[in-house]
Amino acid sequence: MEERLFRQLTFIKEIDKIKKIIRKSRHFTDDKFENDAEHSWHIAMMALVLNEHSNEKVDILKVVKMLLIHDIVEIDAGDIIVYNKTDKHTELEKAAADRIFGLLPDDQKAEYYNLWIEFEDRKTPEAKFAHSLDRMEPVLQNVIHDGETWFDNTVTYDRIIDINRKIGDGSSALWNVTKDEIDGLFIQKKYHPFDK
Amino acid sequence: MEERLFRQLTFIKEIDKIKKIIRKSRHFTDDKFENDAEHSWHIAMMALVLNEHSNEKVDILKVVKMLLIHDIVEIDAGDIIVYNKTDKHTELEKAAADRIFGLLPDDQKAEYYNLWIEFEDRKTPEAKFAHSLDRMEPVLQNVIHDGETWFDNTVTYDRIIDINRKIGDGSSALWNVTKDEIDGLFIQKKYHPFDK
Repeated sequence: MEERLFRQLTFIKEIDKIKKIIRKSRHFTDDKFENDAEHSWHIAMMALVLNEHSNEKVDILKVVKMLLIHDIVEIDAGDIIVYNKTDKHTELEKAAADRIFGLLPDDQKAEYYNLWIEFEDRKTPEAKFAHSLDRMEPVLQNVIHDGETWFDNTVTYDRIIDINRKIGDGSSALWNVTKDEIDGLFIQKKYHPFDK
Repeated sequence: MEERLFRQLTFIKEIDKIKKIIRKSRHFTDDKFENDAEHSWHIAMMALVLNEHSNEKVDILKVVKMLLIHDIVEIDAGDIIVYNKTDKHTELEKAAADRIFGLLPDDQKAEYYNLWIEFEDRKTPEAKFAHSLDRMEPVLQNVIHDGETWFDNTVTYDRIIDINRKIGDGSSALWNVTKDEIDGLFIQKKYHPFDK
């Protein structure tokens, strides 16, 4: 086999490991915690279906690529709840990107490494919209599961809004519906007998 | 919320169920059986990384879309091992596509239903390449797991080659490496003490 194809297949087999990275949020339709492969598939589907709600016109192929690869670094760096992310974790992720995308032929390593950096930097329309979806999915999941992740980690309403309002940077329309869901949950909780 | 966005979010939540559809093949790097969301993510990644090996030039966004949605019908119709697929199963899948894509606004329902039909018909360059990847992934997984699915279901070498040679319709290069992996396994098995 030629070396180029060998390197591509080595990468393909290595990234299988994201199926073992378990997130802090649960599936929409059952109680299982989601893994990074499932999450990446789901937000790529969201990008396709919700594309028209991006604030700016985007290259949708680029958005989908970003979302499919954005969590590959977690194979080495692990998953950190967004409310706890640190600079040290960012350094771990950069080393991971270097190692894992480095399995690919050089031109493809450069393409995917740069795409991941572009996603992390959140400056382009594609990166902003991709981040909106990456944030929106766990919020909607968490609302369905009664806000569990927030209440278990004592994350306040103000902190939830502060972190998630960034969804609006990529899509005002999606932030509006997401905020409605958060507000709906808190209004319900306020009158929940166990909270009194 | 406007009806259009409501329908899109209803679809997004419904397709979560593909995470519960368990396939007959295992992950590359552990013994867990793969689910449809993981599989769809993985072959979409393969499409991006292995694009240059398609026999014909393809619209890669279309290929990725096809692969991300191709198993959504299994939410209603279930997963059937390729060696056992029947006409009745195909009818179940069509009804599923009608129901599930029908959750979307009409224009998007038409887009995704037609894309799924195009994938199933295997006539366009995009559908052929997408099918190559959908077939190649479980073969590579199965070789890593010592051919278990084939030997447990007494699928013969000739039948394996007959079914999987279709990988070559989308990519001769990928069929060549896949056949090498199958042949390597059978050569090894021939000298396996438990087979004597």
